[in-house]
Amino acid sequence: MKLIRNIALIKNEIKKAKKKNRKIGLVPTMGYLHDGHISLIKRAARECDYVVLSIFINPSQFGPSEDYLRYPKNIKRDLGIAKKAKVDIVFAPSAKIMYKNGHQTCVSVEKLGTCLCGIKRPAHFKGVATVVSKLFNIIEPDIAYFGQKDAQQAIIIDTMVKDLNMPIKLKILPIVREKDGLAMSSRNIYLRKADRANAIILYKSLQQAKRMIASGVKNANTIIHTIRKVIKSTPRAKIDYISIVSSKDLKPVKRLKGKILIALAVYFGKTRLIDNIIITV
Amino acid sequence: MKLIRNIALIKNEIKKAKKKNRKIGLVPTMGYLHDGHISLIKRAARECDYVVLSIFINPSQFGPSEDYLRYPKNIKRDLGIAKKAKVDIVFAPSAKIMYKNGHQTCVSVEKLGTCLCGIKRPAHFKGVATVVSKLFNIIEPDIAYFGQKDAQQAIIIDTMVKDLNMPIKLKILPIVREKDGLAMSSRNIYLRKADRANAIILYKSLQQAKRMIASGVKNANTIIHTIRKVIKSTPRAKIDYISIVSSKDLKPVKRLKGKILIALAVYFGKTRLIDNIIITV
Repeated sequence: MKLIRNIALIKNEIKKAKKKNRKIGLVPTMGYLHDGHISLIKRAARECDYVVLSIFINPSQFGPSEDYLRYPKNIKRDLGIAKKAKVDIVFAPSAKIMYKNGHQTCVSVEKLGTCLCGIKRPAHFKGVATVVSKLFNIIEPDIAYFGQKDAQQAIIIDTMVKDLNMPIKLKILPIVREKDGLAMSSRNIYLRKADRANAIILYKSLQQAKRMIASGVKNANTIIHTIRKVIKSTPRAKIDYISIVSSKDLKPVKRLKGKILIALAVYFGKTRLIDNIIITV
Repeated sequence: MKLIRNIALIKNEIKKAKKKNRKIGLVPTMGYLHDGHISLIKRAARECDYVVLSIFINPSQFGPSEDYLRYPKNIKRDLGIAKKAKVDIVFAPSAKIMYKNGHQTCVSVEKLGTCLCGIKRPAHFKGVATVVSKLFNIIEPDIAYFGQKDAQQAIIIDTMVKDLNMPIKLKILPIVREKDGLAMSSRNIYLRKADRANAIILYKSLQQAKRMIASGVKNANTIIHTIRKVIKSTPRAKIDYISIVSSKDLKPVKRLKGKILIALAVYFGKTRLIDNIIITV
């Protein structure tokens, strides 16, 4: 396994792999790998001949008061995990290498980027779409792998790929959870011990919603109301949003029908956690 | 030569050409071809094994009061010219095919798109960058050819390619002029006979600027003042802008130094003409 930090060098490796007709899989991450990432890497290793793992904490997707500077990192540990999971190349550029002086081009998925998480994080998805475009152009993967945990991100990238006719196939893999149900996230490490225990309320509330829907409830507000009540039973949990939307265009749904996404974001102290489920009604 | 109007079909042709290791050249145009376009096609045919000419009047780069609906077209004549100039494929999709219902992704080169022509045409370069990104992703050319006539467009696309790490080489070819000096443009056909004769004042004013610079004038305002005077000698000419900027970042230059771009836009009636020269001082 190679670790490459430079764009020209990785382009050269990719060129060689393409000449050998290797099918290239890309797993874009911000590092501090957990089992969610590992599930993406393993899937890429099964489906492709050549797996690139990118580790890049992308400054342009963090807001000014967000956790860019303290985002957890441990490249040594990440490299061990990557090697074990059969990554061929880890691409871990610096911010200076990715964003040259004078960088000014951005990719924006306009409507989908302004709802849900886009309300509290107005420039977030523009940063995501831009850096993912750059990674796609650098690595030129056949398939790129993303997690369903970031549901809005997955839909935005899918829309970007289709709208801009990018020659790339996307695979969105299921959320990987801790034993108690908490969705895996590099940010879980921020949680104090008590909050970590309380944080399972997100998953519990979604499971409650699932049961309600299974029992025939179709009114979105009724379900949102219940989720809110469940989460509020944990005093430290501060709800950012709870939304039920179409999984296709993220438009709010009043009466459940078809494939819907229940997405939520909740703060524990300064730590903002997200979770979601997709249900076909 | 093939004419293809469908994205899946052209992608398939490109795939076949790539398998044969063909070097692909793309000449993106809005059709109504003139000698400027032909110079691009011929250069592409010399340097590449496989030449794609795209003809697409891109709605997203026209403002609401601009000439989208009346932009000149003559596909039959264009196909004749393309065939003669050794084009392999003409890609001429409809707007509906290029912009599917719900299309919402855009590419924007933020600072460079807001000066010069970007003042009167605020969404123009966002439309250009977006459609060029799409064409690049559809055709995956090794080299793409553009004309220096659209100097700001050329710099914006160059910046986009670098900022987003697109795996494409750009070639910007010189302006091709009519015998009397008027820069070739599909829009010249809009000019009434008298305006057509008067329109050479753009080129004349740039030549006058060139002579001033050769004689040692370094003050940008002095040169702009002279260009303005020369153009105003033609009463029907209504100046939009005359600017002297760095050819690298389009920032206004006060004292001429290095590679500078003198760019101007002038209306004759409703017809807006642009012209420019690059001079190394």
